[in-house]
Amino acid sequence: MKSLVLLFFAVFAISFSHAKSPNFVVIFCDDLGYGDLSCFGNPSIKTPNLDRMASEGQKWTQFYVADPVCTPSRAGLLTGRYPIRNGMSSAKRVVLFPDSANGLAPSEITIAEVLKQKDYATAAVGKWHLGHLPPYLPINQGFDSYFGIPYSNDMDRIKGADNYRKMADDPNWYPNTQQYNVPLMDGAKIIEQPADQNTITKRYTEKAVEYIGNNKDKPFFLYLAHSLPHIPLFCHPDFRGKSMGSLYGDVIEEIDWSVGQVLEAVQKAGIADNTVVVFSSDNGPWLSFKTHGGSAGPLRAGKGTTFEGGQRVPTIFWGPGIVKPGMVTEMGSTMDLMNTFATLAGAEIPSDRKMDSYDLSPVLTGTGKSPRSEFHYWTRAELHAIRSGKWKLHIKQREMVNYGRQVEMDKPELYDLVADISEAHDVAKTHPEVVAEMQKKIEAHLADTADGDADQLEARIPAN
Amino acid sequence: MKSLVLLFFAVFAISFSHAKSPNFVVIFCDDLGYGDLSCFGNPSIKTPNLDRMASEGQKWTQFYVADPVCTPSRAGLLTGRYPIRNGMSSAKRVVLFPDSANGLAPSEITIAEVLKQKDYATAAVGKWHLGHLPPYLPINQGFDSYFGIPYSNDMDRIKGADNYRKMADDPNWYPNTQQYNVPLMDGAKIIEQPADQNTITKRYTEKAVEYIGNNKDKPFFLYLAHSLPHIPLFCHPDFRGKSMGSLYGDVIEEIDWSVGQVLEAVQKAGIADNTVVVFSSDNGPWLSFKTHGGSAGPLRAGKGTTFEGGQRVPTIFWGPGIVKPGMVTEMGSTMDLMNTFATLAGAEIPSDRKMDSYDLSPVLTGTGKSPRSEFHYWTRAELHAIRSGKWKLHIKQREMVNYGRQVEMDKPELYDLVADISEAHDVAKTHPEVVAEMQKKIEAHLADTADGDADQLEARIPAN
Repeated sequence: MKSLVLLFFAVFAISFSHAKSPNFVVIFCDDLGYGDLSCFGNPSIKTPNLDRMASEGQKWTQFYVADPVCTPSRAGLLTGRYPIRNGMSSAKRVVLFPDSANGLAPSEITIAEVLKQKDYATAAVGKWHLGHLPPYLPINQGFDSYFGIPYSNDMDRIKGADNYRKMADDPNWYPNTQQYNVPLMDGAKIIEQPADQNTITKRYTEKAVEYIGNNKDKPFFLYLAHSLPHIPLFCHPDFRGKSMGSLYGDVIEEIDWSVGQVLEAVQKAGIADNTVVVFSSDNGPWLSFKTHGGSAGPLRAGKGTTFEGGQRVPTIFWGPGIVKPGMVTEMGSTMDLMNTFATLAGAEIPSDRKMDSYDLSPVLTGTGKSPRSEFHYWTRAELHAIRSGKWKLHIKQREMVNYGRQVEMDKPELYDLVADISEAHDVAKTHPEVVAEMQKKIEAHLADTADGDADQLEARIPAN
Repeated sequence: MKSLVLLFFAVFAISFSHAKSPNFVVIFCDDLGYGDLSCFGNPSIKTPNLDRMASEGQKWTQFYVADPVCTPSRAGLLTGRYPIRNGMSSAKRVVLFPDSANGLAPSEITIAEVLKQKDYATAAVGKWHLGHLPPYLPINQGFDSYFGIPYSNDMDRIKGADNYRKMADDPNWYPNTQQYNVPLMDGAKIIEQPADQNTITKRYTEKAVEYIGNNKDKPFFLYLAHSLPHIPLFCHPDFRGKSMGSLYGDVIEEIDWSVGQVLEAVQKAGIADNTVVVFSSDNGPWLSFKTHGGSAGPLRAGKGTTFEGGQRVPTIFWGPGIVKPGMVTEMGSTMDLMNTFATLAGAEIPSDRKMDSYDLSPVLTGTGKSPRSEFHYWTRAELHAIRSGKWKLHIKQREMVNYGRQVEMDKPELYDLVADISEAHDVAKTHPEVVAEMQKKIEAHLADTADGDADQLEARIPAN
């Protein structure tokens, strides 16, 4: 039986290039932690749709984002390149803000643009955060349409708004959507300001479901980037108070409902056999917001740091006709989605620039291993750490305080990420040969990235 | 469809008393942490059999043991009473040792004895640790047969043995079974000394599978208490080096295999519809053994402490004909197994003594809520904390150092266990009314336990 299944997948993989191009849906959450889903060990939050997605698909437990904060993480996903290469990383400004003059450079090539080689229909729904001015919006980066907020849901905070940090001690305190003057956009047009964030997850979901139904006859790429559970936390009244006892739980359970709606739409459209749905998060939980921040589960620290809790995210690949079910402990990254999707679609990834994107399709189809053997932990245009196999060497660190305070390191620290999942036991002293080898890899990567694009994050719109 | 399922369970529950008495299997691990199974969030260890058991059954995420160390935890499970009542808790000696003169008092009534009211066949396989001298062995506590080691697998350590604490830095260091002169017993007879621990999980499993096959025609209770993953870690050569990169992972993956064998034996015997299999652990991970200790996942601390990592254990109930699948966030305890099994079997729990055992069968069958509204965290004959609903009040604490060093507390600490799963944010200051209410509950519980049995743990066999 087992060998029959393997044979099926092998034949399937070989014949794949002749099949109709598959559809791709990426569901990308904001600040969702490694430990926030029940299938990743959360004891309080129930996520039956994600649990089913994981048991029918692949649960990836060693999957990384390109940076532990929003803007550079999203740039990494969409371009398949480290932010140090695509310009979306800076030592001075950590993400784009409403006064930012730039965004992801139009010369960068996104997944949407790559899939356009094969005439994919493309749509972005949700948070963008790669430039809110017209040249940088999704519709100028390969997406046919856009519906969502252009940056984080806590930006454009009005004067005199509640002190969120103080209120976050109360897990059921509910913020006021009127205190955040964030715009909701359709294409390049602002259609609502402030966006009513109480209904935003529901509206994103409706847009996504509608899009899937309307595009079932052509190959499509849908990028559904939820603006939650980034603080301020909001949920639809239907979900308020429905989880075990925290607004954070209510918000995650609404996102879980949304995932169920998307999977159901794919199934109803009759395209489940030819669709891959990916669920992930842009970085770890924002722990400084206490009961309004999520959990990194067993991993150390959270958002803003290059510990595992900052950059390892709960990731699920689902696709009954393509993805072989199981738990995957090989390495992958959101940066690999470009190469993986391009391979499955028969498109080409850019060859005129350095890429950091590996083809994970052999793992998805159960026919081979992940080609990713290394991961590099960058933040604020600095390389902090490297992982190679089970080893991780830290050369710089930030504490999990707000976006992370720089910590002075006297010497590098070495962790065995397989046996010591919480980065609790530095073993540099007893493994000098591993440290030396990892340091060489760091030098090689620094040399390879020395020609990175100039930073695009710092420029501000001139004040009149 | 949903209401049909509910109707089925309701009818089933009502008609249950007329059905043949169900079989019970308890698989109880030693020092397995909350975060050690993939279905409870472990990113490195693969447990496909336990994952399937969880998805076909109930995954309990708020399930407690009676004490954070071996002997009193086991006494709590088998008697349905806090160790402060059954004599297996002491301020001076934390567990039974090879020189202990006593064990669980013969006057205590075990689950096996309760089920004997209904003529159950009963067997204990594995670690006992409730007295190794004849009057205290399983065969004198209601079990028809016994095969296993009478106390922990690290006891009877020979002079000059390896320094395990030092070696535990290396996740793949393999200990020498000859250095632990632990006996293997059959009934009251020592049949092997030292027990060959390399094959012990396999041999326990074979005994369990054989027992299930031989007893499929009568109701039975099988207590399968693995002696691992307590250190020293051992596994069968078939599993050595087979996990992602640690001996601890190899050991857990062998236990997962064993669980698969047990479930298969139940199915092969044709009794799956009338059998409940429970999987749990006696306390949290022994963190001081670093890479040879497990993980408490998102929970704070481990074995020996009354933080959640010490007493909340990964628990699964499986039984296709009885247990309604789902994730359960209600409270339960190993002490509740007695009342639950007795109810399902139509037997009576003891009425001549104070009990701490609640009937969880309404939750198992999907017909009602857990009657357990409180849990009391005892260790070393001292009450450390209380949980009521989502609140936990600590009045005493131990650090996770070896068996736990006493920590002085200036004032009680209050945690919201639902929103703050890692016990990271003490909110006593902002919730004085909750603190006062919890303190009253503590006083009531202390008054109720003031007549506890005299301690039985301290007495030693006189040296000749």
